[in-house]
Amino acid sequence: MQRARVLIRNKPGVFDPQGKVVHSGLRRLGHESVQDVRVGKVIDLRFASGSPDELRARIERMCSEFLVNPVIEDYTIQFLDEE
Amino acid sequence: MQRARVLIRNKPGVFDPQGKVVHSGLRRLGHESVQDVRVGKVIDLRFASGSPDELRARIERMCSEFLVNPVIEDYTIQFLDEE
Repeated sequence: MQRARVLIRNKPGVFDPQGKVVHSGLRRLGHESVQDVRVGKVIDLRFASGSPDELRARIERMCSEFLVNPVIEDYTIQFLDEE
Repeated sequence: MQRARVLIRNKPGVFDPQGKVVHSGLRRLGHESVQDVRVGKVIDLRFASGSPDELRARIERMCSEFLVNPVIEDYTIQFLDEE
């Protein structure tokens, strides 16, 4: 079994309204030390098998076809064997 | 500057409708090798300063006060100095 994680965030420079809302909520609760907040999605995928290279290629295809909007979003792929 | 990441997912056993939708979408596109999908939130926080221990305590307070619904969600905290 292989597990992979895709982290999807708005690109730097793209407005992140969720992050702004969370940031102002935290400040209102007294957490003034927070300087910036960005909110994104995490998608954990489980596969029966596959080498990391093979899975990375497969996941990149999933991201470009379906999971990620390449105009406004960036993504990173991590493998979770170590967890 | 310190950066920390909070990953928030539904607890195991709590229904994850977003994950189900993504999973069935991927299968419809031919990605049959995906066995399971879980979708969650990632919140990246930036602080001006603070030791990891101090920040961890502060972030745990933010999670219990505001960011996380402890009835249905789990979270993990990571520090991003290494990125």
